[in-house]
Amino acid sequence: MSFLDEVPWNGDGLIAAVAQDATSGRVLTVAWMNREALKQTSEKGEAVYWSRSRNKLWRKGEQSGHVQKVREVRIDCDADAILLKVDQVGGIACHTGRESCFFRKLEGGKWVTVDPVLKDPSLIYK
Amino acid sequence: MSFLDEVPWNGDGLIAAVAQDATSGRVLTVAWMNREALKQTSEKGEAVYWSRSRNKLWRKGEQSGHVQKVREVRIDCDADAILLKVDQVGGIACHTGRESCFFRKLEGGKWVTVDPVLKDPSLIYK
Repeated sequence: MSFLDEVPWNGDGLIAAVAQDATSGRVLTVAWMNREALKQTSEKGEAVYWSRSRNKLWRKGEQSGHVQKVREVRIDCDADAILLKVDQVGGIACHTGRESCFFRKLEGGKWVTVDPVLKDPSLIYK
Repeated sequence: MSFLDEVPWNGDGLIAAVAQDATSGRVLTVAWMNREALKQTSEKGEAVYWSRSRNKLWRKGEQSGHVQKVREVRIDCDADAILLKVDQVGGIACHTGRESCFFRKLEGGKWVTVDPVLKDPSLIYK
């Protein structure tokens, strides 16, 4: 039996996937994988997700170059989430040009942007 | 407008929530929150989730005592995931008695348990 068969894919055939920077420990992204995405991720050693908005496989970094090199793939106890430890190429995971997608923090009842833009998105997506 | 109104709750009224140990950086759990869970988490400073299996609010640690004290709440760019930085009481987040729920690693095409049980679950859930 393949490790892929042990994943109880949800009603949409997906599982949540958290990517964490292997060096800094920073949580970078939460995205989704279908069976093919997890298979390709494990084979290529680079994160491949399922884009729910575009409804297709999405090789992280295919446009931006900000590939996630996968050092480790883990699964949680009830097998409904994947954790990738990655080397984030370019040090930028977010399409806004920030290190992490989690750049807004709850402060005084408001979501406040607390992380800097490292690179102008117009220079990333040409 | 409340910060709760800025969350595009999914079809089930939920958002994925990653909990990360504030000290070690270890990703501990991925669970789900509804509006009330996120509200209570922000008010109490302790993680409250929505249990999809039990279909009710679940104050993390209510049975085990392994409460997650919340230091920081973040939200990602497209607001479909929450990140909590927590102090994990007891140093155990998983119901199996392990530090993290992500104790299985993909090795040679198999999910292999690589983390030790720190406390026998029968001693946690009496």
